[in-house]
Amino acid sequence: MMDLRKIEQQYKNELLNNILPFWLENSQDEESGGYFTCLDRKGKVFDTDKFIWLQGRQVWMFSMLYNNVEKRQEWLECAIQGAEFLKKYGHDGKLNWYFSLTREGSPLVEPYNIFSYTFATMAFGQLSRATGNSEYADIAKRTFDIILSKVENPKGKWNKLYPGTRNLKNFALPMILSNLALEIEHLLDEEILQHTMDTCIHEVMEVFLRPELDGIIVENVNADGTLSDTFDGRLINPGHAIEAMWFIMDLGKRLNRPGLINKAVETTLVMIEYGWDAQYGGIFYFMDRLGHPTQQLEWNQKLWWVHIETLISLLKGYQLTENKKCLQWYEKVHEYTWSHFKDPIFPEWWGYLSRRGEVLLDLKGGKWKGCFHVPRGMYQCWKILEEING
Amino acid sequence: MMDLRKIEQQYKNELLNNILPFWLENSQDEESGGYFTCLDRKGKVFDTDKFIWLQGRQVWMFSMLYNNVEKRQEWLECAIQGAEFLKKYGHDGKLNWYFSLTREGSPLVEPYNIFSYTFATMAFGQLSRATGNSEYADIAKRTFDIILSKVENPKGKWNKLYPGTRNLKNFALPMILSNLALEIEHLLDEEILQHTMDTCIHEVMEVFLRPELDGIIVENVNADGTLSDTFDGRLINPGHAIEAMWFIMDLGKRLNRPGLINKAVETTLVMIEYGWDAQYGGIFYFMDRLGHPTQQLEWNQKLWWVHIETLISLLKGYQLTENKKCLQWYEKVHEYTWSHFKDPIFPEWWGYLSRRGEVLLDLKGGKWKGCFHVPRGMYQCWKILEEING
Repeated sequence: MMDLRKIEQQYKNELLNNILPFWLENSQDEESGGYFTCLDRKGKVFDTDKFIWLQGRQVWMFSMLYNNVEKRQEWLECAIQGAEFLKKYGHDGKLNWYFSLTREGSPLVEPYNIFSYTFATMAFGQLSRATGNSEYADIAKRTFDIILSKVENPKGKWNKLYPGTRNLKNFALPMILSNLALEIEHLLDEEILQHTMDTCIHEVMEVFLRPELDGIIVENVNADGTLSDTFDGRLINPGHAIEAMWFIMDLGKRLNRPGLINKAVETTLVMIEYGWDAQYGGIFYFMDRLGHPTQQLEWNQKLWWVHIETLISLLKGYQLTENKKCLQWYEKVHEYTWSHFKDPIFPEWWGYLSRRGEVLLDLKGGKWKGCFHVPRGMYQCWKILEEING
Repeated sequence: MMDLRKIEQQYKNELLNNILPFWLENSQDEESGGYFTCLDRKGKVFDTDKFIWLQGRQVWMFSMLYNNVEKRQEWLECAIQGAEFLKKYGHDGKLNWYFSLTREGSPLVEPYNIFSYTFATMAFGQLSRATGNSEYADIAKRTFDIILSKVENPKGKWNKLYPGTRNLKNFALPMILSNLALEIEHLLDEEILQHTMDTCIHEVMEVFLRPELDGIIVENVNADGTLSDTFDGRLINPGHAIEAMWFIMDLGKRLNRPGLINKAVETTLVMIEYGWDAQYGGIFYFMDRLGHPTQQLEWNQKLWWVHIETLISLLKGYQLTENKKCLQWYEKVHEYTWSHFKDPIFPEWWGYLSRRGEVLLDLKGGKWKGCFHVPRGMYQCWKILEEING
């Protein structure tokens, strides 16, 4: 049996004394503003490109900590400098958010990716709460409106799918909006908020969650809601589905819907059992629901965010329902995650492991790994344990 | 010391009695035409989407065998039925070649990928030689003209790079054109042929091959020909570089330039030494020339085409220069390739192995693996050995 008081301190300590100092010290670009995220094992910058996903997420992270943990000036300053860089260089002047920039802020990759927009919204939404600055609130709100206008074809003119042949709906956007709706609740009209929450809950829990497949969540379905026997339609991303479940639990709390919470907890357990690698431990990155080979060559790798998001969903599930299976799985995933992803020598965690759990990329940050899943997971688990422990 | 007569029979036998029957029996879609390529370990279709790269490559393969090995009617029929499917469904009516189609031939992915065009050109070029059909020749020639018109921006409107910030040149197109120029020599004006050959040789051997990096080949350089210290600019793909070297050797033979042949052989040896995994054997898929982490999560995997193309370059290099190092490396790569990629129980070869050489995807064909590298490699090695053995 785990000592939950000890574990609470473990997550809190890791966040405050290992993860956050790593990013404060190594990632801030004092010359051009914004954050470096391509950081090697020791925190040294190995590439200077700036990715809007990760710029937005780091602004969000430090704003959120400032709002919810402690009014530390260096956290606020870190968030503001990143936000000013984003405001100046991150978009085309009309809040169409690029995918990446050079170190100095010149656009490298066009605004084809909707999640550049969602993470910009999160960033400016949290920072507006920290600062009371109405310009930040306005950027968040206007960007959110653009996201809603792009729901039908998020990639716009960069969409390479031939129109009409195979119209699939993808899980990622409703999944992220489940979280974003509550993130910027303070900026939304009651009606839009309600509509967004209802739509997301419906899509996540009734369109992508499939009772006929024993309750697993698929990444893509046909536009009419039926299953598709294609590479995309067979794709399962257990970590993605499990992450969505704690967003849904938060919505269940917000809306006081215990039935919804129970369903999200049940689905977390279905997905961890589905995605767990019985041979080497850890959770697979991608699977095919019919057991066919995936297109993704990285399918059997073990990724940091998958495991950290799973810890959050299991612990939140335990807190909200007292389901013992959540705690049992939490203990197992906690053990795997801390023993494989935490670098025992240098700060921060590895992101990419082979199926066997060996380090695959010797980095602490890159194109997709920034100051986000590790610290958010540490924060979430710490705070949930604080509530459980009383 | 290898018994080169025995090895010659081994490649010939594998081609004629294992690989070709697998594709003739399992891949042809008798209902809709064209070829299935998503085939499981035993040859059963697990997905019916049709990818233009692989449709074109299979048409080319059977046409080439008909032209160069034996006038077998079933080879010609296989090529023609695939070509008729491609002619009818593979493009938009103006020879803009889609990336993929449904089983029935409806376009799935737009014509964003220039290599759909290059492999269509190869296909119709070879088939025009086999059949004398001028319509096929015309399709090859007109598609080749479109390729030349797209050299500056192959992705067209689907290009996500912001114009002007970082203009990189990529190795893949000049590398493929080195091969394509000789493939369709019979269809080209002497002047265009000469110009294409000169340009490709210059780009491959003087732009992407870098003396200041001890003669390795990089995947991307700045538009002005300088090295770029970015993810793309640091990327090395040893198999890609080595494959290009046998295309250059063929050009060296065609143009009677022994100096060019020697340089290509030398570069083959540089790249195999650079890309060989001293710990587990096999050749890495991607590397970073400064030793930084790559963006590609599959960087350390062992891919069939990398090893098979390397066998061709080493053997051709030995044939043309009698360099003993080529034969030593050939023996080593032959041993690794046959013992890891060939399925000892069912026909055809695996495509994707983990770094340790374990089967990563239990398939014989997929989105990128079709009837191409294995049979072309068997054919090339057989024929080279036939010439060596006399």
